[in-house]
This record gives sequence, C-alpha cells and structure tokens, in this order.
Amino acid sequence: MHGYHLVPKKEVRQRVARLQEALREHRIEASLWIQKMDVFYLTGTLQRSYLFVPANGDPLHLIKKDFSRGARESGIDRKVPIRSRKEIPAAIREHYGKLPATLGLEGDVLPFQEWQVMAEMFSNSRLMDVSPLLLRQRSVKSPYEIAIMEKAGRVGRQVYEHGRKILKEGMTEIAFAGEMMAKAFALGHEGLLRMRSLNDESYCWHILSGASGGIVSYINAPMGGLGLSPAFPVGASRKAIRRHEPIMVDFGICLQGYQIDETRMFCVGALPKRYWDLYRSIVRIHHAILGATRPGVRGRDLFEMGLEVAEKERISDIYLGPPGNKVSFVGHGIGLEINDLPFIAKRDETPLKEGMTFALEPKLVLEGEAAIGIEDTVVVTRDGVRRLTPLRQTVFHAAGH
Amino acid sequence: MHGYHLVPKKEVRQRVARLQEALREHRIEASLWIQKMDVFYLTGTLQRSYLFVPANGDPLHLIKKDFSRGARESGIDRKVPIRSRKEIPAAIREHYGKLPATLGLEGDVLPFQEWQVMAEMFSNSRLMDVSPLLLRQRSVKSPYEIAIMEKAGRVGRQVYEHGRKILKEGMTEIAFAGEMMAKAFALGHEGLLRMRSLNDESYCWHILSGASGGIVSYINAPMGGLGLSPAFPVGASRKAIRRHEPIMVDFGICLQGYQIDETRMFCVGALPKRYWDLYRSIVRIHHAILGATRPGVRGRDLFEMGLEVAEKERISDIYLGPPGNKVSFVGHGIGLEINDLPFIAKRDETPLKEGMTFALEPKLVLEGEAAIGIEDTVVVTRDGVRRLTPLRQTVFHAAGH
Repeated sequence: MHGYHLVPKKEVRQRVARLQEALREHRIEASLWIQKMDVFYLTGTLQRSYLFVPANGDPLHLIKKDFSRGARESGIDRKVPIRSRKEIPAAIREHYGKLPATLGLEGDVLPFQEWQVMAEMFSNSRLMDVSPLLLRQRSVKSPYEIAIMEKAGRVGRQVYEHGRKILKEGMTEIAFAGEMMAKAFALGHEGLLRMRSLNDESYCWHILSGASGGIVSYINAPMGGLGLSPAFPVGASRKAIRRHEPIMVDFGICLQGYQIDETRMFCVGALPKRYWDLYRSIVRIHHAILGATRPGVRGRDLFEMGLEVAEKERISDIYLGPPGNKVSFVGHGIGLEINDLPFIAKRDETPLKEGMTFALEPKLVLEGEAAIGIEDTVVVTRDGVRRLTPLRQTVFHAAGH
Repeated sequence: MHGYHLVPKKEVRQRVARLQEALREHRIEASLWIQKMDVFYLTGTLQRSYLFVPANGDPLHLIKKDFSRGARESGIDRKVPIRSRKEIPAAIREHYGKLPATLGLEGDVLPFQEWQVMAEMFSNSRLMDVSPLLLRQRSVKSPYEIAIMEKAGRVGRQVYEHGRKILKEGMTEIAFAGEMMAKAFALGHEGLLRMRSLNDESYCWHILSGASGGIVSYINAPMGGLGLSPAFPVGASRKAIRRHEPIMVDFGICLQGYQIDETRMFCVGALPKRYWDLYRSIVRIHHAILGATRPGVRGRDLFEMGLEVAEKERISDIYLGPPGNKVSFVGHGIGLEINDLPFIAKRDETPLKEGMTFALEPKLVLEGEAAIGIEDTVVVTRDGVRRLTPLRQTVFHAAGH
C-alpha cells in the first residue's frame, strides 16, 4: 500500500542466523537489542520493541507499541506484546525456561540509566557490550540491501539533475537546499539521515557555496559550512550564491532506511580554471582509491593512497581540511546509519570484504574561500568496486546560465 | 553575518548562575555537561566541547572542535582547547586545584561506555545524574528565549499560509510536506527538530490526510500516520490527498535552536459537517485548557480538564487516540528539545511557572478514517497564557478550490 514495502522474512532470518553465529563464536549466551536501527535490522520493524536473540534457538520479539503494526512488519516468528520493559525478564523465562548467564547489550548507545535498569532486571547475568558484533555484521550488505541503496542512488541522480535546473544566482544556500529537499521528498526520500552518536546529527543539506566551503565546524568533516545559527552551525546558510563560485553539494538520500551519500560541485556560470584544476586533482584521487579497492585491502591502505596522490598533485596542504585542522578519514561506511563500518581512515586495519558499502569523499578546503570535492557511494565486489550513485562525475552547471 | 546570531553573553551568565544555585541547593560540588543541547544552553555554542560547572566559582569551557569558532561563540569566560576528553581531569586540576568529590553527569543520555570512561577519569569522585536539575531549569524560558520562539511562530504562520496556497487534490502527503519544507527552509527553519531520546526521533512533516490520520505508530502520539516505509513509519506518506478529506498538518519550526510546534486542519474543498463538528469540539477542549492555564496549575490538572470536556462533548472514545491505544498526555514542553518539561500529562504533578513554554495538542483519532486536532505553542504568563504561534485558529482551505 502506497509503496510501503516490508522487509522480506528470509532477509530477517539470515540476519538473525549470522548474529547467532557470532554470539556462539564469542561464547555469549544471548543478546538483547534495544536501539532502533539495530532492532530494525534484525526484525524489519521500527515499532517500539526489544529483540532477544539467544546464541542457540529462536529469537523472541517483545513489542510495546504498536503491537499489531509491529507484529505485521516483523520477520521474527515469536512475537509477544509487552506494556513495559519490566515484563522482559518474565517473558524470557517463560519462553526459554531461564535467564542467560551472559547477556550482550548495546554499550555504545544505551544511556547509562537504561543500562542500569537492565543490570537490575538481569542481576544474575554478566552484561557485556555486543554492539561491535552487529556493527561488523551490518557492514556487509546483502543483495537485497544493495538493491535498495542503488534505488536511493537513482533518486539522488534525479535530485541533483533537478538542482541543476533550478539553481540561480542570488538564491541562498538554504533556499536551494529546500528546493532539492522538496524534490527528494516527492521521490520518496525519508528526510532524515541517521547517525549512531550522542552528539553528532546528520542532515542532507550540506550545501556550501564559495567562502562557506572554507569554514570548519564541529563535525568530523574537512569543512562544516556556516550553517544558520550557533545552534545549527553546519550545512547550508543564508549566504546568497554568486556566479563563478564553486558550490559543494553534498546531499544524502534515504529509502527504506538505507542511505547513500554523494557530492558534486555545482556552479552558476563558468567555474574559474583554478578550481577546475583542483577539481580534476581531487577526481584523480577519487579514481585512484576506487581503482585500488577490493576485498582484503584495508581502510588505512586506501587512506594512505589518497595522501600519496594528493602529494603528487601538490595539494597536500589543502587536502582533507585546512592546515592544522585535517580529518583522518577519506570515506565512511554507510547503510542504516551514516557512520556504519568500515571506516576508510588512518587507523582502520580491517580488511574490506565483498558486500561492504562505503561513501568515498576526498575533499579540499581553501580556508575562507571554497571547498572542492567529490563523493560516491560504492559497494565492494568480488574483484573491485561498483558505484551505487550513478550521478555524472562532472561539474553541474546551472541550466540557463 | 548572514543572519547568524550569537547568544548574548548575559544570557549565558544567567543560565550558569541559575544552575550553580541548583547545584548548591543539592550539595553537588560540580557538574560536567556533554550532551549537545545542554552544552549549547549553557555556553551558546554547539561546537564540540565540554562544560565544567562547579557549584561555586567560574565555569570552565573545554573546547575540542572547532576551537576558534567555539571560543568566538561561547559566552563562558574561561575557555581552553583540548584534543581529547582525556585532557579534562588535568585541565580541571589546573584551574581549580583539585577534582570534585561529587560530580554530576547526564545519566539520562550519556551512553554507558561514555559514563564508564568518565567513571575512570574521575575515579575518586562520586558520580550522580544531574540532568533533572538542568531540565527543570530549561523548562522556564527567559524573555530572550521566548522572543526567538515567537519569531519561529511567525515563520510557522508563513509556512502554513504557503501550504494553503499550494495544496492541491492528488498531491501526495510527502510531496506536500516537501513544498512546506522548501518554504520553511527559505525562511530560515533549521530543518531538524530535536528530541532527547535514544530511540525517538523528531521530524517536521507530520502531515496525515484522511485514513492516514487513523493509523497508530510507535511514537508517543495519538496517531502516527503510515509514513514511507517500516524504517520511517510515521508522518507523511505516499498517499494522494483527496477532496473533502480532513488533513492534519503538524509541522514544527526551529530557529536558533528553539522550536515551536503547531497543528491545523487543512482541506481541499469543503470539510464535511461531521468533521467540522469534531473540529469545533476539539477547539473547545483547547480553549478550556488554555483558559485554565496559569502559574501553580499542574500538568495533570490540565490533562484531567481535557478529559472532562471531551466527555461533555461526547468524544471520549476517540479523544487522544483510538480505544485501547490512547496516550496519557495532551501537551509537551518545548524549547531546545521537543520533549522539554513540563509534560501536560496524567502523571505530571509539577506546578506550572511563569515562563514555561509548552505545545498543547488535543487530538481525535477516527481509526482507519481520519485525525482531527489543533495545536499551539504557548508561554505561561503571570496570570494566564500567551500564544507563540499566531496562526489563525480555523480550518485552512486549499486556495483555488
């Protein structure tokens, strides 16, 4: 109904089975999942619920609100309604005969108070953090997940082509962002980008024209932009877009919970040669890294390759941030959260695997002047990489100028 | 520059002084603030930083990224750059000569792991949760804060009037939402609504036409709507808007971090008499509650008054949700977070105070058919209440129909 697609039951079953393998491998008797994207990944619903996954045996889905909707959407067989989390231990005892000796929880995101409540409810269980297990699992996407991300990539292409058509000199960055948002919404974009973090928050309208691109902010990115106020000090601002300015358009799309991220340079009128040259350099870094991506390569290898090409291109001083304020990553995993694993970063030692998806975003910051960059979301294949963002790799010139 | 307004230093000073009074009253030696909206409230910046507030003496602002931007925006006098949170204890020792014996942290939102790191860094301090102190303080707004919310209310009015002009039969809810979003962005809306919660997330496009209004979802609201997918199962959907359907438009606005929330009914063509009658009933509840609001009255008194008027209007069965699935609140505090205190709810015993702001939203759910309601954001005055959302209290009919 109305393009509201459920997650296939088979998909949910495979995800739970993979998690159970990891639990057995780590000798953890059971896990309880509470955070919304973890629960969505493992059940297929965002309705308020808890998922109990033992290392062996069937999982139990405890649904608080809305039960009927959650029961319809969940791919888990055993579903019980609960009115409050206090009923969880009794429900587990009823279905499994006992409470687990070791219980995994999401230590990276569960608030301290929530953890304390769980510690009281499971006072005879040894609690441990199992988020890393699921995050590693989630980093490798299934064909079903990749197909959704490709669909999001096609929506992104339409949104960017629309942006090119409506971009005009004198528009503010935020008004331009709003027009792209309207188009994205009309195409089914879910509006929010999700990030696993207490203090970071994601947004789709990272649109920085001219000098805005040269402004650093709190986010872990080479540039943050001015934003609208100290309470939202990132992304599009009220600055008017002028002719010949490089405009960095970094606008993510979310469909069925899955995100893609991409960046292209826009310009009203001709882009000055100096910026074109920098753009070509950054594209060379982009392609060098993508050309070297394959299973077994580590995030840090790709990160270092980027630094090397930047040096050859003689742009090291402005690569990944202004001097003294550089970030130590050039790409990030993406999927249900915009900071999924893997991290294409200085310190990431994990070898890439087939099915991993990440956004690669080499960027340059000319402090106080502009940002130049490119970004695509890709999936690691058997012997290389495939782009999920089919957008033309070029500078987008405003139509009618 | 570009309408980017800093928080006045005087405002920050008063906020810190009020918090220090509360710390002394509760005999807590010091507090460390980490969560973004708490830090923004107490410093004036969202740049990545930590604020140490002793019960006596000057606060210390430890700024990680971006230091120069944070230092410029912060209203705190003592500012030091840090590269990592590990440097916090040493910085406190350097400025105060010792670490505090009791230290308050945000137990409701700090992730378990983060709390553990703090417990190790302050291994000789007794840690306690001080979020309730600041949340109570934040519930009472200053004239400066109220003025920003009024400005957001005026933006909301323009967005709703624009919505009336562009609404057409056959538009999908989400496309209509996108057009309102574009207008809101052009007027400076900061795009995100913020909610203090692990699993709840806020969004501005709660636009439900006809049957969508009769659908319950996971959120703590009388109705959730269908949404776009099980991964975003709330708010506007791909359902096309039809003539004579009641359309609930609940679209929040955020300016300089401060939010307002409001709801009006829209319709393409004439609204059938049955819905008009229900709308008039709900407006009577709205005005009865607002008429009784003044300092000293408790949230639960207002909630109960709503139930009583609903009974007189013979709409108890559909008031605040369908039978068996009703919410136990009729309004919520609002400000930097959309679940600020006070809660106009069954169990809220706290007497209202002058300067408190809340959104009042009595709503009806006709299961499988429609939602009817109204919502305004108000501030409690010396002897009553003042509306911050100047929107006409009527049904908005699509222009040109």
